[in-house]
Amino acid sequence: MRWGLIGASTIAAEHMIGAIRASGGQIATVMSSDADRAASYAAAHDIDAGVTDLHAAMDGVAAVYISTTNEKHMAQAMAAIEAGKHVLCEKPLAMSVADAVTMVKAADAAGVTFGTNHHLRNAGSHLAIRELIETGRIGDVLSVRVFHAVHLPPHLQGWRIDNPDAGGGVIPDITVHDADTVRFHLDEDPVEVVAMKTARGMGQGVEDSAMSVWSMPSGAMVQTHESFTHAHAGTGIEVHGTEGSIIARNVMTQQPTGDVMLRFDGGEQAVEYSDHSLYERAVGLFAKACAGEARPAADGVDGVKSLAVAAAVSEAAEKGQRVTVDYGGI
Amino acid sequence: MRWGLIGASTIAAEHMIGAIRASGGQIATVMSSDADRAASYAAAHDIDAGVTDLHAAMDGVAAVYISTTNEKHMAQAMAAIEAGKHVLCEKPLAMSVADAVTMVKAADAAGVTFGTNHHLRNAGSHLAIRELIETGRIGDVLSVRVFHAVHLPPHLQGWRIDNPDAGGGVIPDITVHDADTVRFHLDEDPVEVVAMKTARGMGQGVEDSAMSVWSMPSGAMVQTHESFTHAHAGTGIEVHGTEGSIIARNVMTQQPTGDVMLRFDGGEQAVEYSDHSLYERAVGLFAKACAGEARPAADGVDGVKSLAVAAAVSEAAEKGQRVTVDYGGI
Repeated sequence: MRWGLIGASTIAAEHMIGAIRASGGQIATVMSSDADRAASYAAAHDIDAGVTDLHAAMDGVAAVYISTTNEKHMAQAMAAIEAGKHVLCEKPLAMSVADAVTMVKAADAAGVTFGTNHHLRNAGSHLAIRELIETGRIGDVLSVRVFHAVHLPPHLQGWRIDNPDAGGGVIPDITVHDADTVRFHLDEDPVEVVAMKTARGMGQGVEDSAMSVWSMPSGAMVQTHESFTHAHAGTGIEVHGTEGSIIARNVMTQQPTGDVMLRFDGGEQAVEYSDHSLYERAVGLFAKACAGEARPAADGVDGVKSLAVAAAVSEAAEKGQRVTVDYGGI
Repeated sequence: MRWGLIGASTIAAEHMIGAIRASGGQIATVMSSDADRAASYAAAHDIDAGVTDLHAAMDGVAAVYISTTNEKHMAQAMAAIEAGKHVLCEKPLAMSVADAVTMVKAADAAGVTFGTNHHLRNAGSHLAIRELIETGRIGDVLSVRVFHAVHLPPHLQGWRIDNPDAGGGVIPDITVHDADTVRFHLDEDPVEVVAMKTARGMGQGVEDSAMSVWSMPSGAMVQTHESFTHAHAGTGIEVHGTEGSIIARNVMTQQPTGDVMLRFDGGEQAVEYSDHSLYERAVGLFAKACAGEARPAADGVDGVKSLAVAAAVSEAAEKGQRVTVDYGGI
């Protein structure tokens, strides 16, 4: 399958170009609003054409990967859908839940495949955690703790830390991933959230840290911590059930790494998992979905829902009130 | 010093009787509302007199240890203060912050020593954590995570899980300890809180689980999780700073156990700490305070403040609103 890259981004360079090629795809074009960047990025990554025009970027490709800043996703995705292209879009899908719903419904009506690039549910670690939960190894889930407080690397300290109009801030950047991961593990959608946020050391006009609590339909409680300012905290997820606990450390990451441990009455055991590339699995499933042979790892509805949870967390932190998550009717 | 025990309680039997005797104190009396229990408890623990009358229990003693159910603390403490006795009172001090303030002010006016039996700040582990923070080993504190979700042992599954009028529920029982511990470590008082609570499997008419987020004057954020229903979660506290993180596991306990680890750019190191008895240290400092030679490990003001935080968490969870902690003017 021939791809066009919408956005000459770091994540495409670090992960997606390799994943597309490893999955047998070809990258025909890359689009940047900056002509020099388009050309140099194309040259650096051996891409046929670096262009500034969206329609030129879609010429001769079957699918686009959108990784521009968040405020641009909607118009670019709508144009791609209108042109009959399959769309794999970075998270958060849009600046509002309503916009994301519009995108996903348009893709559905046009009969193109729409995926959201949530990498974590593709990790062997998280697939193993989900299987432990699904097969009842920890009984009924009582609570989940998500630790996703990291130190944003200097080369990513751009719009994410100072541009609310581009979707900056740790809630759109990281809380969306935590929402998708919890939905993936528990197979249910958060109902209500409370939250606090702060900017301390990195965020300028946007939050660099957030903590939230979510209620789930099953009665499980969820707590999360996201940050750009934590250099030594590590990441992790814990799922506590009536019969056991899953403790996973350093698994909220783009790499196929970290430790998963199952703790129960009899003791503790390390859980083995596959160390395949998260992004290769995501791209591979998306390509199969385009061929009608699979579902994307995370589809458009998943993207709407992760954005809806993040939007609720943001609103709850802003207003100091418990907020019911609004999934936009999807 | 001669002591009277107000309340023939499990905690006195398991910890405080031994701690008082190890600290050189004598236990003259024990009071229970049930005459048979008073007598059998006195016999079982080699206490001179088991009585049902509060004034009889205070006869000939210099200090009382109050560990009745929470709704009884205030009247008993006020009577003891009026009788000129020093008071070491279990947490939460009272059913309301206003009542706790009244008790502490009365003790102050009467010139008797008032202590709150927060055991955790007496632990070698927590003393070591506080010293790491105080001496700047982790830089400025960015966040604290407190994990205090345990499985309430069957012999304690009485009023704590079904009697709101006696102060049951996990927030009065455990969140107060977490509040005291965070105050102890950061040397500042929580400002605002948001929270959720639930009852799922154990609580009847009271919550058995709670999650909350607190803001601190320094800008640090705190998240907590308390529960009676978690058999496999373990306990812990993490303090994350600009220069390093403290990761302590299984330290939210009455025993002098658990692991403390300091993580910084260069790696990780285990932190050594004293394994003295938490309760012996608390009783020893209280006895010295009665002699004018020390301060209690946790005094009355500390007890008011931990209750105030727990009350704010309870109100925030009930109302679904961010609540400013009301310390009752103390």
